[in-house]
Amino acid sequence: MQALLDQIAAEMATAPDRGRVASYIPELAKIDPQQFGIAVALPSGEVYSAGDAATPFSIQSISKVFMLAIALGRLGDQIWARVGREPSGLAFNSILQLEQENGIPRNPFVNAGAIAVTDAILQNRQPREVLAELLRFIQAAAEDDSITINQAVAKSEQATAHRNIALAEFMAAMGNLRNPAALTIGTYVHQCAVEMTTTQLARAGRFLLGVPGAPRLVSLARIRRINALMMTCGHYDASGEFAYRVGLPGKSGVGGGILVVAPGKASIAVWSPGLNANGNSQLGTLAVEKLARGMGWSVFG
Amino acid sequence: MQALLDQIAAEMATAPDRGRVASYIPELAKIDPQQFGIAVALPSGEVYSAGDAATPFSIQSISKVFMLAIALGRLGDQIWARVGREPSGLAFNSILQLEQENGIPRNPFVNAGAIAVTDAILQNRQPREVLAELLRFIQAAAEDDSITINQAVAKSEQATAHRNIALAEFMAAMGNLRNPAALTIGTYVHQCAVEMTTTQLARAGRFLLGVPGAPRLVSLARIRRINALMMTCGHYDASGEFAYRVGLPGKSGVGGGILVVAPGKASIAVWSPGLNANGNSQLGTLAVEKLARGMGWSVFG
Amino acid sequence: MQALLDQIAAEMATAPDRGRVASYIPELAKIDPQQFGIAVALPSGEVYSAGDAATPFSIQSISKVFMLAIALGRLGDQIWARVGREPSGLAFNSILQLEQENGIPRNPFVNAGAIAVTDAILQNRQPREVLAELLRFIQAAAEDDSITINQAVAKSEQATAHRNIALAEFMAAMGNLRNPAALTIGTYVHQCAVEMTTTQLARAGRFLLGVPGAPRLVSLARIRRINALMMTCGHYDASGEFAYRVGLPGKSGVGGGILVVAPGKASIAVWSPGLNANGNSQLGTLAVEKLARGMGWSVFG
Amino acid sequence: MQALLDQIAAEMATAPDRGRVASYIPELAKIDPQQFGIAVALPSGEVYSAGDAATPFSIQSISKVFMLAIALGRLGDQIWARVGREPSGLAFNSILQLEQENGIPRNPFVNAGAIAVTDAILQNRQPREVLAELLRFIQAAAEDDSITINQAVAKSEQATAHRNIALAEFMAAMGNLRNPAALTIGTYVHQCAVEMTTTQLARAGRFLLGVPGAPRLVSLARIRRINALMMTCGHYDASGEFAYRVGLPGKSGVGGGILVVAPGKASIAVWSPGLNANGNSQLGTLAVEKLARGMGWSVFG
Repeated sequence: MQALLDQIAAEMATAPDRGRVASYIPELAKIDPQQFGIAVALPSGEVYSAGDAATPFSIQSISKVFMLAIALGRLGDQIWARVGREPSGLAFNSILQLEQENGIPRNPFVNAGAIAVTDAILQNRQPREVLAELLRFIQAAAEDDSITINQAVAKSEQATAHRNIALAEFMAAMGNLRNPAALTIGTYVHQCAVEMTTTQLARAGRFLLGVPGAPRLVSLARIRRINALMMTCGHYDASGEFAYRVGLPGKSGVGGGILVVAPGKASIAVWSPGLNANGNSQLGTLAVEKLARGMGWSVFG
Repeated sequence: MQALLDQIAAEMATAPDRGRVASYIPELAKIDPQQFGIAVALPSGEVYSAGDAATPFSIQSISKVFMLAIALGRLGDQIWARVGREPSGLAFNSILQLEQENGIPRNPFVNAGAIAVTDAILQNRQPREVLAELLRFIQAAAEDDSITINQAVAKSEQATAHRNIALAEFMAAMGNLRNPAALTIGTYVHQCAVEMTTTQLARAGRFLLGVPGAPRLVSLARIRRINALMMTCGHYDASGEFAYRVGLPGKSGVGGGILVVAPGKASIAVWSPGLNANGNSQLGTLAVEKLARGMGWSVFG
Repeated sequence: MQALLDQIAAEMATAPDRGRVASYIPELAKIDPQQFGIAVALPSGEVYSAGDAATPFSIQSISKVFMLAIALGRLGDQIWARVGREPSGLAFNSILQLEQENGIPRNPFVNAGAIAVTDAILQNRQPREVLAELLRFIQAAAEDDSITINQAVAKSEQATAHRNIALAEFMAAMGNLRNPAALTIGTYVHQCAVEMTTTQLARAGRFLLGVPGAPRLVSLARIRRINALMMTCGHYDASGEFAYRVGLPGKSGVGGGILVVAPGKASIAVWSPGLNANGNSQLGTLAVEKLARGMGWSVFG
Repeated sequence: MQALLDQIAAEMATAPDRGRVASYIPELAKIDPQQFGIAVALPSGEVYSAGDAATPFSIQSISKVFMLAIALGRLGDQIWARVGREPSGLAFNSILQLEQENGIPRNPFVNAGAIAVTDAILQNRQPREVLAELLRFIQAAAEDDSITINQAVAKSEQATAHRNIALAEFMAAMGNLRNPAALTIGTYVHQCAVEMTTTQLARAGRFLLGVPGAPRLVSLARIRRINALMMTCGHYDASGEFAYRVGLPGKSGVGGGILVVAPGKASIAVWSPGLNANGNSQLGTLAVEKLARGMGWSVFG
């Protein structure tokens, strides 16, 4: 395992096409695209890693996985009255389907859907209560209390959140927002700014392994469902491609991280800031494909 | 296993909401919606079944799985120049994305994509050669030489194939059709008219199990990829829902059949002619969900 | 003329299908749908009227005509860098095309386009300055200083402006908004709340007649262009229908008013609060059709 | 008038950006883009012309105007059960709206709508009967019996008619086609291949002037309605732009011709084979704009 990770990290270090760092969030635009980290956590918490696996980065949309788990715990299947379970066939921040489908986002992993989930978790609470709950969840999953939010990133995102505010206000117009858009989006940009190292993220993902030894934060039935959604919707309009090439459920973030689950076997995290055309980490996707092939991991046979 | 199947068949026999039989193909519209069959084939070929598992039905779009396997064998990755690998977010027979995406269908399991696959397999051959190749493939997978095409169904579909012809002609206009539309659609309606019993279909699906004992018609790498596509795209715009509820790759047909793969464990076939709003078997989906839950089968944990 | 108007008003008084009053703005939802007013102003200012032509109503989107005239005066053709000149083929408040067309609204008469126009007029000024300029323009056109804004309606619209805020924030995300969305939308809801009687509106429309005697607030070249846009885009996705049935340029408002121009001949205003499925006054459209036919007015022959 | 036409023709002769000749119909792709012709016919039939006004060209979509007039004569308002009256907001050959709007094309001037009109006129007749009726209509309007169909162009279009066949088959699938697609499209490609000189076309357009002296082939009420449709839908997704710049109803064809009506005053034809991005004659549009401005012709004031 360690040898395979070292080999992948070495290959990635010299990869010529590293994608492009997300430019619309100023704080993220500064990140050095040369960085690459990979980590594999076994159910027990034992971690293998290579590259820049100890460098903290912004988990961005990977936070949607933890928030969905929290929402299912708080609201159960009621959450599905506010968000669907289908791949969108469109970009992560599209507003088009929202108009065509009465303000109900396609799934919890596109921006509109994640905003609806955050709004549902908020209820009548303050954003800081929800963010504290999210950090507690992630810290428990990673068994690491040091994980926190990068306020500079949150502030930077808040300043350029026009499109997310548009999604929230549009849902408000369709009756699918319970809190003021400013409150929900304020919470949302902070959840995206949670900062973790690749190693921490791999450890946190163990709650989706569904086997003894891993932290048990949600039931096996819910683990399966969250993994299913990661498989069909976790990489926006490249989810089919990820399933085809990697064969494991995963969730990417615009910060360049990807969390991947080999059910029962291992939680994988990878990070490289350069993104491909669909907004997923260019080298991260490639690295996970190599790892899965090398280990023979696939849920499909 | 047998007890579970019997119990499911009994429940389905009295289900009040059985969906609606496809009405646009006259021969299919005649089918009695009261029927229900389920069968589970182990890698070895051993089959458990219940209900009307010995009644032949039209596999329709399930044929797309076999054709994709043949296309991958004949053309390898070249097939992906003509069809994508992403869920569509739209109905099975939508022409909209074809216009927005330059005549390249979203995936091989929506109608346009399957027509492109059939067209690619045809090359300069006659339709009957391709259909003979398909039947040989299915017969080998099922280890059953009696499987054939229902000519009455094919003829009935040909007469109402306007929308599929439109898809083919539109692809021709965009440079993504190699044969005359009449030839490709003629082949396509016949492949949809392959007739199998639920038991035969369950046996034929074993080629996707990827374990010793099952017929090995394609490589393990391809098995995984076909299963991945069934997971993300196998149920049209309800693929996310099927992944969420059942947790196994599957492909539905408008004849009411569904082929489901529990990788390494079993091939499952179910049949009930009434369809839900997305064009998938209403009771079939429900039955497979119960079976997967009862057996603890899920690729997601 | 008077006899024709009296006859139309009498017919409209007993029309059984009066459409539905706009319900999404609480203040408008209270309006009595039994009301109907019609007025025809000759270039000289002479007015013929019938029905409730002296009752003030909210001009709503008809304000977009006056604002476009002001924008053309202030910015000239530069305004066309921010908004197009084509019918949309979609509903008045659609956000879909904004996404597909890089944040440039289709025309100045759909909501998004009108918001872009308001934003362009605002520049670095305060909303009250812009609103004062609008009132001065309308008062000059109508030669009536008593026209003002209904603050209760403005406040009511502000409280339910989620969709318009979404349009503004989306344009901000695409780089097509210069002022904070709150400022632009604050101005926009107030311009919609200008209150006029049918007679006042008919008199105000004379600035589009393009003949001596009528107030000359814009050049003949601009009059023609504004009228052209009213013809192709003035009734949202029913503009073609209005051109076909009435044959004159017009602009409708969700308050139930319609301003119609018979170039060189007369300015027509009609008001009836009940709307048809496209958001245009049901009886207003019918009444203008009868008037145009009765007078033989059409720009098309 | 003659001086103005000569001046326009001289300017157009040296215009650097002439657009691009339609390439998808091989016979049209051969045409020399240097050509330019313009002609103005007064109601009496007196014609002023300049440039290559005596060179025959393919009228293509301008035939849709004559066919609509015939359809209104044969079927009256029943034709509107099969086609709408709204601008599409999309390209001339789009199939997208057909899917979203149940197979009812937006208007008679987009391809799908014109195919529906042709299909409606066909009824149970042979294509040659319909084509003879069309030629008689055009010959009567132009008072010129020499106008005929270019069979080479028709044959060339037939060979590349995939997209139009797709539109027809899609409408067939939605229940909006009465004849076999091959028959309707066969008629359609021949109607597009009618060949006329610019002078002949200008003379033929007089039937839309609505004043004594011009050939009276349809009632004044219908003239107004046809002109209204030309204004809102005659230039595909650049109809708003044409109304804005020219201010007169017109219909363009992919052969580079445009027929424009100055109601009561003159019928204008212009021809230059190079097209702009919307599929309308680049120089033709410009020339008509100059002519209308020079003459002070506009329906809008």
